[in-house]
Amino acid sequence: MTETTPLDAGAVWTVTAAALVLLMTPGLALFYGGMTRAKSALNMMMMSFASMGLIGVVWILWAYGMTGGDGLAGIVGSPLNDLGAVQSMADGDLVSVGFSATFAIIAVALISGAVADRAKFSTWCVFVPVWVTLVYAPLAYMVWGGGLLSADGAIGARLGEALDFAGGLVVHISAGVAALVLAMMMGKRQGFGVDTAHRPHNVPFTMLGAALLWFGWFGFNSGAASDVEQLGLTWVTTLVAAAAGMLGWVLVEWLRRGRPTSIGTASGIVSGLVAITPACAFVSPLGAVVIGLVAGAACALAVNLKYRWGFDDSLDVVGVHLTAGILGTLLIGLFALPETGHAGLFHGGDGSLLLTQTVAVVVAVVFTAVVTAVIAFVLRATLGLRVSVEEEERGVDLTLHDETAYDVGFGGVPVPTDAQARSAAAAE
Amino acid sequence: MTETTPLDAGAVWTVTAAALVLLMTPGLALFYGGMTRAKSALNMMMMSFASMGLIGVVWILWAYGMTGGDGLAGIVGSPLNDLGAVQSMADGDLVSVGFSATFAIIAVALISGAVADRAKFSTWCVFVPVWVTLVYAPLAYMVWGGGLLSADGAIGARLGEALDFAGGLVVHISAGVAALVLAMMMGKRQGFGVDTAHRPHNVPFTMLGAALLWFGWFGFNSGAASDVEQLGLTWVTTLVAAAAGMLGWVLVEWLRRGRPTSIGTASGIVSGLVAITPACAFVSPLGAVVIGLVAGAACALAVNLKYRWGFDDSLDVVGVHLTAGILGTLLIGLFALPETGHAGLFHGGDGSLLLTQTVAVVVAVVFTAVVTAVIAFVLRATLGLRVSVEEEERGVDLTLHDETAYDVGFGGVPVPTDAQARSAAAAE
Amino acid sequence: MTETTPLDAGAVWTVTAAALVLLMTPGLALFYGGMTRAKSALNMMMMSFASMGLIGVVWILWAYGMTGGDGLAGIVGSPLNDLGAVQSMADGDLVSVGFSATFAIIAVALISGAVADRAKFSTWCVFVPVWVTLVYAPLAYMVWGGGLLSADGAIGARLGEALDFAGGLVVHISAGVAALVLAMMMGKRQGFGVDTAHRPHNVPFTMLGAALLWFGWFGFNSGAASDVEQLGLTWVTTLVAAAAGMLGWVLVEWLRRGRPTSIGTASGIVSGLVAITPACAFVSPLGAVVIGLVAGAACALAVNLKYRWGFDDSLDVVGVHLTAGILGTLLIGLFALPETGHAGLFHGGDGSLLLTQTVAVVVAVVFTAVVTAVIAFVLRATLGLRVSVEEEERGVDLTLHDETAYDVGFGGVPVPTDAQARSAAAAE
Repeated sequence: MTETTPLDAGAVWTVTAAALVLLMTPGLALFYGGMTRAKSALNMMMMSFASMGLIGVVWILWAYGMTGGDGLAGIVGSPLNDLGAVQSMADGDLVSVGFSATFAIIAVALISGAVADRAKFSTWCVFVPVWVTLVYAPLAYMVWGGGLLSADGAIGARLGEALDFAGGLVVHISAGVAALVLAMMMGKRQGFGVDTAHRPHNVPFTMLGAALLWFGWFGFNSGAASDVEQLGLTWVTTLVAAAAGMLGWVLVEWLRRGRPTSIGTASGIVSGLVAITPACAFVSPLGAVVIGLVAGAACALAVNLKYRWGFDDSLDVVGVHLTAGILGTLLIGLFALPETGHAGLFHGGDGSLLLTQTVAVVVAVVFTAVVTAVIAFVLRATLGLRVSVEEEERGVDLTLHDETAYDVGFGGVPVPTDAQARSAAAAE
Repeated sequence: MTETTPLDAGAVWTVTAAALVLLMTPGLALFYGGMTRAKSALNMMMMSFASMGLIGVVWILWAYGMTGGDGLAGIVGSPLNDLGAVQSMADGDLVSVGFSATFAIIAVALISGAVADRAKFSTWCVFVPVWVTLVYAPLAYMVWGGGLLSADGAIGARLGEALDFAGGLVVHISAGVAALVLAMMMGKRQGFGVDTAHRPHNVPFTMLGAALLWFGWFGFNSGAASDVEQLGLTWVTTLVAAAAGMLGWVLVEWLRRGRPTSIGTASGIVSGLVAITPACAFVSPLGAVVIGLVAGAACALAVNLKYRWGFDDSLDVVGVHLTAGILGTLLIGLFALPETGHAGLFHGGDGSLLLTQTVAVVVAVVFTAVVTAVIAFVLRATLGLRVSVEEEERGVDLTLHDETAYDVGFGGVPVPTDAQARSAAAAE
Repeated sequence: MTETTPLDAGAVWTVTAAALVLLMTPGLALFYGGMTRAKSALNMMMMSFASMGLIGVVWILWAYGMTGGDGLAGIVGSPLNDLGAVQSMADGDLVSVGFSATFAIIAVALISGAVADRAKFSTWCVFVPVWVTLVYAPLAYMVWGGGLLSADGAIGARLGEALDFAGGLVVHISAGVAALVLAMMMGKRQGFGVDTAHRPHNVPFTMLGAALLWFGWFGFNSGAASDVEQLGLTWVTTLVAAAAGMLGWVLVEWLRRGRPTSIGTASGIVSGLVAITPACAFVSPLGAVVIGLVAGAACALAVNLKYRWGFDDSLDVVGVHLTAGILGTLLIGLFALPETGHAGLFHGGDGSLLLTQTVAVVVAVVFTAVVTAVIAFVLRATLGLRVSVEEEERGVDLTLHDETAYDVGFGGVPVPTDAQARSAAAAE
């Protein structure tokens, strides 16, 4: 990299966008952390932060290389492609490495919402790099890196390339499916289904988290825009789909329960954002409004299924990210605009795009489900997936981290940490 | 939009700025939410979020088209100009649509601070799109879109165009006047004027909110910069005016009460930012320091008037945004630099600019007051503007949203939501 | 500035980066504020905000001019170089003024962590501009402005210029040394060393603060990048060093105490970021991983020294910023890559770079220690450095600001402010 290239608008936008996307993960930590009870809020936040720490390193060590270049059967690139980011550094192209890292970081962090209050933190720290290596990186390769579902891939060459501008398949469907698998294999929280058992402890945090997610999502969806028109289109569809997602969710609440909630507002925003993620560069602003409305309303209904079907997707990763991820990916098949190079059914298309998108969804769901189940099975048999009942009752913040989120008389007398208890005992 | 334009610095800056401005509204939600009592904090935040949801959609449906192009008597553009952003999409100019949306979103959200604890949320959700359509969009048209006060408008052609670089007239004066109208028509909160009745429940949120507002304000004020010199000037005047606003407010506190406060620090920042908003591209950094100091001090004094005059501008929208908005707009008439194309009285100007600015303020105040009063009158007669005394006493979070901001033993035993109460009753 | 330059990528990036860096100071306010007890949280935050207010103004009045141009003995520039930013305005170069202001703001704010709970706020408001004028500005001049340690300076010309890309010497070492001096001269908090005495009151704030710091740090480290390669390199080294810093700190915790903590996670991030600050443009991503790991682990150990050596560096400014600042500055001597124009010992260098860096560290430490001690000595003898024991016990939020951070029943009955107490007494 002794040759240098003058700063240009594209590179500046990519690093700006990358910073925005990185901020989404702490945003997610607040979004999730506010929804748990106070006694497990720190653990919840740490699961997201752990992804920043672990994937921040793993991505440049080997995972980035697996998302492109030479690969295996269209499924995954070789980790040798760019060990330690040495090749990217030599090519002077570290901007892409940084930008892509932030997507992997949030993808796996999303999953943590399904295992609130009960996941073993040590096992989580193993799961994170393994899942990114064996699930996320392959999916990124299949969709964006020249693999199976790409234009030249085994499926893509037959059915046309799968459209996923910013990560409906790669990020949200994969995280949603993995969340479902983990929730089922880990079992339910104590008190699951009891109405008063799991009230959010700090709703303003959840709203702030949703806001930071929305803010960062402009980097997520527009970061890869290649021209001014696409930049404007992706930015505006991201704005209006989130807005419409909020309206869709809140309308359902208002009709069903008579009162709109903050949690619904925050969740509706995320639903709209997830749904527009794959579609943001392919639909009109009006199409984005419809997609957002549909996704918000659908997710507001879908989050109740866990009670009926009996899996404890604690903070609704499945209900939101899987539901809206699938919706958004499929709706491209209806709403894609010819001006963007692809025509959906509503704009003169012949349905082949809808078929392509459907196949891509099936591939992503099946691949993620199988590999995640294998990972979880091995981890359950070796390290164990969840804490003991006693640890869960006492709260994982105290039992796993010897901390409490607050020391301000919440719930009466502050609970001493174990270190403090030992210290007090020693003093006597 | 089949033709594409390579990414350029201007478009990248506009979308970056737009994301910054969008973040201001959640920042405002925290700023306001922290200042209310815990029992109405979520409702306060939701009033801001509702603006993001409603205006995010309404802006592209019809309101954006009303801010430019063909119009009625120099007062407002036709909603048909760009229904559904279809024309902007065809022109490949969605960047402007997105950027301008974020201004409308925060303008109406600002008003909510005046009606804390007692506004009917359902009525607010009607007020928001109506006010943006009938007040905000026309003002944007008059000042920026070729209307009355613009260079070629009926007034502007005679007196010179009104200077409002980033929204002193269009955003802050209009929000401040509307806040005054609503506060007067809605009446006072229970306990208004009693010293202990309305202490801020979470001051760190208010400080974080002020910080996010300041951060986003760089997009607000510099987002429309057309060259490097203007970019640097608007950025620096925004920095120093906010800093000076903080100093001005805190000095007044220190002199009057002997102790500077966090709330004063946060409010002083906002005062300085509001005042520099119209002026940021027309004054020197030193001029911005003076404007910030004056605005901070003036607002610190102005916020006491509500007690004397008896209107419950709960979180000081009038005291801050109207006061500093008028100050900043008028002070351009004194501090404008010839290098920026306009000369204020202190820099060799002849006072005509001050006259123009004064007339513009009067137009904005009168127009906003009249139209807002009509809207509020109709809403009061039909939907009702405020909740019942019982609902207000119990707290609008519980009564309107069936939620509480915290479930951590705040104030003793957590209050059950109505859904929980029903569920408990059913279980017995 | 009547001539205008079209917007370019460099200017757009600089103002974006400047906004990011400005956000770091409120981030720091949350990071520190969450770590104090509830009764001094606002004061802690206000010490950071005071820096934004005071330095925001002082920087353009005189301090910016002292960081370059004509100077005194290679030690400091003349304040007359750019009084009121008039010269920069005439040159159309206010972008640099704004960007550099944000560094000075956070540098002095960092120091406040060492004097939590007991510093006199009025004295702090004097210390801030004095320290920036007499310590920060000279160091910036010595390292970046053509002074002693620069390429043409008295030392730099002999030993080679000291490498400090983004502020290891100028910001972190200087803040760390000043923190040590103040902590020693101010004495310990009541209860220092008692295990239960100073538990963080709101750990989620601390985590959010760390996240905002990380986010803003991309502006801090990459803001001065001069080409695309350097932009990508500094962005990625900033990402991975923070990640590795988290891992390093948490690993030490896990090994020593069996349980990783949130406070460790947040502190580890900051440690890695500090260490990579001077080095970010000179080392490879792999080098950054090593630097981050070493810094995280070293700081996790270093923060215990205050108990052994008996100085109350309350929130570990010395343990983190001084330790990691020195480490990062020195490790350039080992890890610098020839491709970046400098060769460290591990990449074929001859050790001269390590010598240069060592000398630079010594100069920065000695200069800061001496001047800060003089400032603190004078302030102690005149205004007084700390509050009374009674004020400290009651909490500086109430005693210095007549406020409490929360009014939600924290710790039982809300404490009335003095104004409320007076008002209640008057009512009787």
